[in-house]
Amino acid sequence: MPELWSNGASGATWSILVHGGAGAVAPEERAAHAEGCRLAAEAGARVLALGAAPLEAVTVAVCMLEDDPRFNAGTGACLDADGRLSLDAAVMEGSGLRFGAVCTLPAFAHPIAIARAVLEDGEHVLYAGDGAARFAREKGFFDANEGAMITPRARERWEAARLDGTRPGWAGGTVGAVASSGGRVAAATSTGGRVNKRAGRVGDSPIPGAGTYADDGAGACSNTGDGEAALRLCLAKTAIEWMRAGMSPEAAARAAIHHMEARTGGLGGIILIDRAGAIGLARNTETMSWAAHAAGWSEPRSGV
Amino acid sequence: MPELWSNGASGATWSILVHGGAGAVAPEERAAHAEGCRLAAEAGARVLALGAAPLEAVTVAVCMLEDDPRFNAGTGACLDADGRLSLDAAVMEGSGLRFGAVCTLPAFAHPIAIARAVLEDGEHVLYAGDGAARFAREKGFFDANEGAMITPRARERWEAARLDGTRPGWAGGTVGAVASSGGRVAAATSTGGRVNKRAGRVGDSPIPGAGTYADDGAGACSNTGDGEAALRLCLAKTAIEWMRAGMSPEAAARAAIHHMEARTGGLGGIILIDRAGAIGLARNTETMSWAAHAAGWSEPRSGV
Repeated sequence: MPELWSNGASGATWSILVHGGAGAVAPEERAAHAEGCRLAAEAGARVLALGAAPLEAVTVAVCMLEDDPRFNAGTGACLDADGRLSLDAAVMEGSGLRFGAVCTLPAFAHPIAIARAVLEDGEHVLYAGDGAARFAREKGFFDANEGAMITPRARERWEAARLDGTRPGWAGGTVGAVASSGGRVAAATSTGGRVNKRAGRVGDSPIPGAGTYADDGAGACSNTGDGEAALRLCLAKTAIEWMRAGMSPEAAARAAIHHMEARTGGLGGIILIDRAGAIGLARNTETMSWAAHAAGWSEPRSGV
Repeated sequence: MPELWSNGASGATWSILVHGGAGAVAPEERAAHAEGCRLAAEAGARVLALGAAPLEAVTVAVCMLEDDPRFNAGTGACLDADGRLSLDAAVMEGSGLRFGAVCTLPAFAHPIAIARAVLEDGEHVLYAGDGAARFAREKGFFDANEGAMITPRARERWEAARLDGTRPGWAGGTVGAVASSGGRVAAATSTGGRVNKRAGRVGDSPIPGAGTYADDGAGACSNTGDGEAALRLCLAKTAIEWMRAGMSPEAAARAAIHHMEARTGGLGGIILIDRAGAIGLARNTETMSWAAHAAGWSEPRSGV
């Protein structure tokens, strides 16, 4: 992993870090994945530079990644065992610990925007399936054309998994973002989950403390990878608590991935940010596309 | 709260603690609620005395509470805004950190048994809605007669909430159990959630680290009360980590309820057990029915 995170953006007035999922992106596609992350980080950076809250920045960044068909979220999301979209997304802000999420959502273009509406509505924090879709429609979101959201690549992967006859595959390509500004933090995550997952399966992304968490007293986190492992370990909350105890985001990210591998054998990646804007990431997969931007940087940085 | 928990069952070869939900049970009904908890604790104690694992004991105890129409789980569960059952349940064992859960499950007699089947199946850890129902049928569970599971009391409460026109009420009466035997721990929770909750709402009960958690390295936890607050705080995992750091179950229970009230204003109750069998409980509601049994006790203890 790049060493630049040791010093990262510490002390910046704002910073943002996004990921495009842990996995094994082919060498010839890596530049395009990094570019997708860079565009999302830039979009988030623009609203932060204008003084918007980190919650706004992570929502905007993840919305862009949902539109990007290269990633496993929104358009381009992987298919479940029925060949359908079943989408999970969550967003959290660290000042009031407000959280909003949807799971097993049918085809909507921007699950993260619906998660954001759940957060703003404030009545409940998590909606599943048909109820999540009804909530979305009541808030003015339109059902998407599922066929138009399913990319040829997603269908190929699903068909390969079906022919293979093996257990649900792991898609990679979950997207997420963490941001910090003026001592406040937020996190967002969106995913199609695992290729050929059984109908109704919920992963870690929409679960507070598993795939997504933010607390101004410690920092913010978004995970990607083996969702079942992250759920069983409360991986996001665990990493956040290590930061609260004094670990740097980079050290906490590495410790979290080590912890996941040691306790469950799980594979994945994690991005972290603290309230001072320092950022850290780690993975035990071959690749995890990412991009970051911060106040005072002349341009975003990105990698895979 | 009773002081007996300071010394509790520490050092016992096995112990079990169950709850019938935090809330405000009317004085004339409290003995019956304590009795329901006592029967469940005894059932769990019987299998522990025979040498079964804590996972077995918490499943058996919660199954009994689901059958008891006095509690808000299984038969007697509260109704959502559509006047339907939408059930959440989870079970976890602390040796392998295996977890199984269902959320927004339609009418099945024993959601906790389906959660247990999810845990044993091992493919995923959480299923929602129709997918959860399909998983259950594939594992041999039969759909229940929803009308027979809805008690007159549940319907009355729903009608009162609808007439009232207020936001979703809080039912109380979630059920749960924690058990310890030979250094191993487990936890289980089952609920109908909140009266008149919006369709698709998922509470804390089926979420690892929110309403249910177990780790042999620290202890086990089941929560009841304001599910949204417990979700936002990862309350179960938080209490477990305080036990790992050296707090007694009683101290951790009190600290967790204080934390919930301080950070969110939430109301609820919590039961905890450590690997040595010591138990603790706390609530900031008027009542929480409970019962406990342990090796060496001549009879179970219970209260409200």
